Amino acid sequence: MANKPTKTAIRFTREADFPAWYQEVVKEADMAENSGVRGCMVIKPWGYGIWELLQRRLDRRIKETGHQNCYFPLFIPLELIEKEAAHVEGFAKEMAVVTHHRLVAKDGKLVPAGELESPLVVRPTSETMIGESFAKWVRSYRDLPVLINQWANVVRWEMRPRVFLRTSEFLWQEGHTAHADEAEARAETATMLEVYRDLAENWLAIPVIPGEKSESERFPGAVETHTIEAMMQDGKALQAGTSHYLGQNFAHAANIKFQDAEGGESYCHTTSWGVSTRMIGAMIMTHGDDDGLRVPPTVAPYQVVILPIARDEEAAARVLPAADELAARISDTVAFGDVVRVHVDKRDMNAGEKRWSWIKKGAPIILELGPRDLDQGTVMVTKRTDIQGKAPQTTDEFAATVKAQLQGIQDQLFAEAKAYRASRVRADITDLAGLKAFFADESHANGGFVRAYWDESTASEEILKEMAVTVRCLPYDQPETGGICVVTGNPAAKQAIFAKAY
Amino acid sequence: MANKPTKTAIRFTREADFPAWYQEVVKEADMAENSGVRGCMVIKPWGYGIWELLQRRLDRRIKETGHQNCYFPLFIPLELIEKEAAHVEGFAKEMAVVTHHRLVAKDGKLVPAGELESPLVVRPTSETMIGESFAKWVRSYRDLPVLINQWANVVRWEMRPRVFLRTSEFLWQEGHTAHADEAEARAETATMLEVYRDLAENWLAIPVIPGEKSESERFPGAVETHTIEAMMQDGKALQAGTSHYLGQNFAHAANIKFQDAEGGESYCHTTSWGVSTRMIGAMIMTHGDDDGLRVPPTVAPYQVVILPIARDEEAAARVLPAADELAARISDTVAFGDVVRVHVDKRDMNAGEKRWSWIKKGAPIILELGPRDLDQGTVMVTKRTDIQGKAPQTTDEFAATVKAQLQGIQDQLFAEAKAYRASRVRADITDLAGLKAFFADESHANGGFVRAYWDESTASEEILKEMAVTVRCLPYDQPETGGICVVTGNPAAKQAIFAKAY
Repeated sequence: MANKPTKTAIRFTREADFPAWYQEVVKEADMAENSGVRGCMVIKPWGYGIWELLQRRLDRRIKETGHQNCYFPLFIPLELIEKEAAHVEGFAKEMAVVTHHRLVAKDGKLVPAGELESPLVVRPTSETMIGESFAKWVRSYRDLPVLINQWANVVRWEMRPRVFLRTSEFLWQEGHTAHADEAEARAETATMLEVYRDLAENWLAIPVIPGEKSESERFPGAVETHTIEAMMQDGKALQAGTSHYLGQNFAHAANIKFQDAEGGESYCHTTSWGVSTRMIGAMIMTHGDDDGLRVPPTVAPYQVVILPIARDEEAAARVLPAADELAARISDTVAFGDVVRVHVDKRDMNAGEKRWSWIKKGAPIILELGPRDLDQGTVMVTKRTDIQGKAPQTTDEFAATVKAQLQGIQDQLFAEAKAYRASRVRADITDLAGLKAFFADESHANGGFVRAYWDESTASEEILKEMAVTVRCLPYDQPETGGICVVTGNPAAKQAIFAKAY
Repeated sequence: MANKPTKTAIRFTREADFPAWYQEVVKEADMAENSGVRGCMVIKPWGYGIWELLQRRLDRRIKETGHQNCYFPLFIPLELIEKEAAHVEGFAKEMAVVTHHRLVAKDGKLVPAGELESPLVVRPTSETMIGESFAKWVRSYRDLPVLINQWANVVRWEMRPRVFLRTSEFLWQEGHTAHADEAEARAETATMLEVYRDLAENWLAIPVIPGEKSESERFPGAVETHTIEAMMQDGKALQAGTSHYLGQNFAHAANIKFQDAEGGESYCHTTSWGVSTRMIGAMIMTHGDDDGLRVPPTVAPYQVVILPIARDEEAAARVLPAADELAARISDTVAFGDVVRVHVDKRDMNAGEKRWSWIKKGAPIILELGPRDLDQGTVMVTKRTDIQGKAPQTTDEFAATVKAQLQGIQDQLFAEAKAYRASRVRADITDLAGLKAFFADESHANGGFVRAYWDESTASEEILKEMAVTVRCLPYDQPETGGICVVTGNPAAKQAIFAKAY
């Protein structure tokens, strides 16, 4: 367990086998595990703690932008979800369906009984149920806008599940709003995408590209889908949050209309937007290294972990109270809007093994405190962003600078992720041959994002599909002039991001 | 809309029709509503805001007592839930069952397809799934105790649903723990019941009687169930939270065992405990009056609501900024561990109607601020606990005493609830005839709790069942000597609480 540069704490390296590395990081950090139910995960304390801190920040931003939390039913009657054709078609293949409401014993086994007159779908998303409520709530323009959010579990049946990234059940928030006019609804869509960009970049240190989805990648039933796209350390893209302008499609389906100031009747313009536990997968694949997880201090359940080092009871009698005292002292500091989260790990365990367990969990700062450190008034400091650079600091110095050191780690993670992405975005590929060559080479050192002109044609997306490449988005920042489509060679107004994706 | 004592804001009085009064309070306070899915409710912002504040307090207490949050699957495979016979039998009649995982079009309609090899039950509670995880997590005594909680939705199919009180889907927290020995598990059960008692009394101002459930009222599969029982304003009991000592029953079913320090193998002792959105129903029926809801300041989404009174634009130009300024000033105060939650209601609406809307919502303090108040440096203060006593206070005086005034309202609500309960607990009924007479009279002025000796026999519970009366609990505080059972006349060691119940 020594810090040999040739040996790393995770059984697989990112370079050798990225998917295996990912699973191993999740396991070694003790974040989550598969359950006995196909595609459903158990989120363990270290993973759930990260989710809670992400939630806390996002919930505050959702409220600051004028939304209120509600809760809507888990189940959707089949006849309701059928109303919006494109929507139901988009989700029909992955819906869990409840058909019975009790169990009875039969031949010594329990079997479903009490068949429902009409089956219920377990929500894959809640436009349908929330639309039904909006139709009741909205009567006049005075009732608008309606600005609602819910934190909930949703179910989309997954054939190839992968913990945090693609699970049959996942946790998320889904915002739903109704507006009197299109401009306001479009502004809402943009506001929430910006909230997500801010969450990703300024809270999770994940650089993202905000932009609009192409038609084929839109949310089923939406007029426009906006997205933030992040690059993972295998060069693949991950959609980290989406915000949809739904036009009047769902308002027509659910009959959400209002009397305007002149007495006329209009249908509302609605939006929806969501971020899920998938964001934790993005965090792992953005920041993890071959020694395991690296958690941004903003969302680390423990930002500082103190390991008391004591070989015998005499040493323990000195070191344990000193560790608690140091923890109490640091806990007074405020960083990222909250008191610093410190944990003293008193488990009876080999000291090296214990230190490595926290490295694998990605705790931002690990402090070792032994009798010699006490004598010298120092602590041994390991920053997760530089585990080879373990070095002593005086206790006073550490306590005085812990906030700055956490901020430094946060900044470094973001800077590294931005540098990594920059090294893998290609803006010099101009034709299909070049695009094919770039994405054909599947070695770890290759792949990434291609930024190039695109004509937004369905035909071109068919060609991309064969290459297992998708248009991730049309980024908001665009050159002033058009160009030539990298896929078809036709004139193109805008540039797009092309990538393989999760 | 004047404060005539003969007219109240709720269409039904508690005395005339308690169930109708309840539904009307929920509706007029805009807390929740029924959805298109049988038995499932929509929790609206005012109801969900109360739930969030209850959650925040309880979540902190759960963490302070050493537990960590996790998340477990929504679905339970049928073959797993079958393992604990008493448990599955207790829930079989009310389980939603998923049998298919997609929908296909057939004759122009969508029908369930992709039948599952084995059906999945939507969790009515999570002992089964969490037990499966515990069996994996626990190897040695060093892994114990395991102290876990989850915030989740659960489904218990309801034939006679009632918003917040009995809904097919509800929100709750469920704690689950595993211990090396019985004493520790029993202590855990007691600790969490005390957390619930504290939550009910010191946070929600609901007086409760803590005690143990009789055998027939136990959680399915538990060795002991402990409860806090509250009295509603119709004299009926409501079980507001439960904590179960599960013995080794679930450990045997799920194979949760560990190697002890001596190398032997033992099964764990487990516990579970939960509080749900039902607690909001208890709050309504404890504190509401004939003018609507009264929310304890601890959980009021807005503790102070400011109503700017302006008949014309000139007045509005003075009053609106003054209202915002006052709100900002009050927001600096800390009450109940958090900054005071103030809302300025600027809706364009008749002033009297607006004031009554907040009375019906139960906002603890309503301030009216008009031009004349501004001239005099005063605000008109209505406390929800004394709406007839509306009176001016100087702005300075109000700002300086808002914390104390909120505390006063909190204390008054608790005191009133305790006095009400005291007036309806009968300790002087000693035989079955008296018991029958007491519970036969269903007029509003009658009913309540009977505290009397009970022999804990199954036969006596049969007799009570015919009277639609249940044993709510065997309270912890007991007389030193035994007595004569109020139902059978046999000797009895302990006293019980008898009541009709929700």
